[in-house]
Amino acid sequence: MRITEGQLYAFAADILQAAGLGKQDAETVAQTLVDADLSGIPTHGVSRMGIYVKRLEEGVVDRTASPCVIEEHPSALVVDACNAMGAVGATFAMEKCIEKAAETGSCWAAVRNSNHFGAAGYFARMAAEKGMVGIAMTNLTSKIAPWGSSQGYMGTNPIAIAVPTGADPLVLDMTPSVVSLGKLILAQKLGESIPEGWALDADGNPTTDPKEGRAGTLLPIGGPKGSGLAIMVDVLCGLLSDGPCGPHIRDLYGEYRLPQQVGHMFCAIDISAFLPLARFSERADTMVQEIKSLPKVAGTEEILMPGERSAACRHRNTKDGIDLADAVWEELCAIAARYGVKLPIEEEEK
Amino acid sequence: MRITEGQLYAFAADILQAAGLGKQDAETVAQTLVDADLSGIPTHGVSRMGIYVKRLEEGVVDRTASPCVIEEHPSALVVDACNAMGAVGATFAMEKCIEKAAETGSCWAAVRNSNHFGAAGYFARMAAEKGMVGIAMTNLTSKIAPWGSSQGYMGTNPIAIAVPTGADPLVLDMTPSVVSLGKLILAQKLGESIPEGWALDADGNPTTDPKEGRAGTLLPIGGPKGSGLAIMVDVLCGLLSDGPCGPHIRDLYGEYRLPQQVGHMFCAIDISAFLPLARFSERADTMVQEIKSLPKVAGTEEILMPGERSAACRHRNTKDGIDLADAVWEELCAIAARYGVKLPIEEEEK
Repeated sequence: MRITEGQLYAFAADILQAAGLGKQDAETVAQTLVDADLSGIPTHGVSRMGIYVKRLEEGVVDRTASPCVIEEHPSALVVDACNAMGAVGATFAMEKCIEKAAETGSCWAAVRNSNHFGAAGYFARMAAEKGMVGIAMTNLTSKIAPWGSSQGYMGTNPIAIAVPTGADPLVLDMTPSVVSLGKLILAQKLGESIPEGWALDADGNPTTDPKEGRAGTLLPIGGPKGSGLAIMVDVLCGLLSDGPCGPHIRDLYGEYRLPQQVGHMFCAIDISAFLPLARFSERADTMVQEIKSLPKVAGTEEILMPGERSAACRHRNTKDGIDLADAVWEELCAIAARYGVKLPIEEEEK
Repeated sequence: MRITEGQLYAFAADILQAAGLGKQDAETVAQTLVDADLSGIPTHGVSRMGIYVKRLEEGVVDRTASPCVIEEHPSALVVDACNAMGAVGATFAMEKCIEKAAETGSCWAAVRNSNHFGAAGYFARMAAEKGMVGIAMTNLTSKIAPWGSSQGYMGTNPIAIAVPTGADPLVLDMTPSVVSLGKLILAQKLGESIPEGWALDADGNPTTDPKEGRAGTLLPIGGPKGSGLAIMVDVLCGLLSDGPCGPHIRDLYGEYRLPQQVGHMFCAIDISAFLPLARFSERADTMVQEIKSLPKVAGTEEILMPGERSAACRHRNTKDGIDLADAVWEELCAIAARYGVKLPIEEEEK
């Protein structure tokens, strides 16, 4: 099912508005979801609409909440998302962060009482689009065990860093686990085993069975390093926002009758406070060029910079439209039908 | 060879002063080195004295340089280390960063024209000791290949994050490589092979031969994740400071006749701008307690928090003295003899 960015965006925003969000919030959430589909990250795209709408319907997410600043300093902010949709509180906080960084050189914002915000890279890129370094993190509920333990505590807490260049921004958007849970779910669906090093079973033993891995924990990258990184992201997102951390955060799916109480942490660093932005971009371009011209290992066609694949996807999909999985499209249509939302494409166009 | 912290500190400072550093700079560098030995990280301790003194003698590091702020905003600083000893420029920058964060809530400082600064965790801990979150990074010369390449570009660029608790701070101090070069050097010395996944040979093929690995590159943690992290640290340290990055930085040992031109990046986040520090510490202690009480995997005696092993080492060594390797002690004594610096311990005491 191929659909243009504009069509999918309008359709997603209409559905979210029908489910109770105000126009602006619906557009904010729709934009983050469609951006993920555009970027070739369908796991964080409109495939989340089902659970987002369910949470809105249950009233577990506050449809009319207005995130607000509850603590403000020249370069530090605490935002209470007031249980709004994750993308709403996150966009609000990153915008404020960018504003303040333009005045002081840099700013950090902690966000409490929030929900699943989508792809971290989206928010980091907001700063890069303004000529700033952007950092975005969020905590999530326990899927990674602290190194040495068999029980999950930290979530697959992502950390994203984006910097502008003369062309597309560099965007690192990584979880501290070797693979995402999605890879285990897929392997199980296909009846395949998983390589050792991806997951531990519930007793903390290495496993190659995706089902056992799902019941256990995801292994962190670099052992204690990835474990430590996940802990630090939780400290920044959970403790600095004075919200819960680790297992005290609620799961997006499993605990859909309870507010998630997710915490985020954002930072914007104004490059022009350090050196002229044009000089920075030029040097970043040189670095990219140098790296991409290095000799390649056998089997590698091109050395890709962080975020390069996603940026190329965005360019292609903006032009050619987004290739949406049939199951995702059908789910969207079913929700739309329930609310009487008009489809963006006539049946014969498909 | 067991020596007290005070003795080693005075001895190291005397040697550095004899080699041409002013008293205060000699003490600053001695403190970072001895702290590493105290913390059980002898690779970053006084074992570096030989190369440090050599660089001072060659005049490649500027003995009398005074780092200065060349760009200043409420929450952004650019420091020109003016080719001073790494620890001198780094300490100067982190102190300024902490000062400004106390006023605005947070501050970032980029440092250019610097040299090897020792262990990143030391500088991150400076902020934690003031009730702040500390972040410290540095770039180094090429040892890690960008993912997909067979040639090194990024250094084992460390990233350290420290946060205060009610007890010892949590300190994550990690390189983005699976292991440090030291492990390959040691394996080669012992005639042992290394596991696959540590290094690639010069052609980019996996190798279990430490010698081939040393001629090649160190593998990043999590593949493209660690590679991306190393690139981002280089962007922050090299580009924001308008200094060189990757292979354009000089090696501490191999290129000891040239200034290294290392870049650092520091951040201090004042916790009390977000929530009362006591509340933060209390919550951090609870988190530590929860994590340490989790069930353990077979063979694990205790779940260790980031930095816990080093902190325990510091407590023990402060009390019992530092166990210095004979070779390191002999090197110190040889340098001291050359400069007529008095030994801190009489021969019969040993």
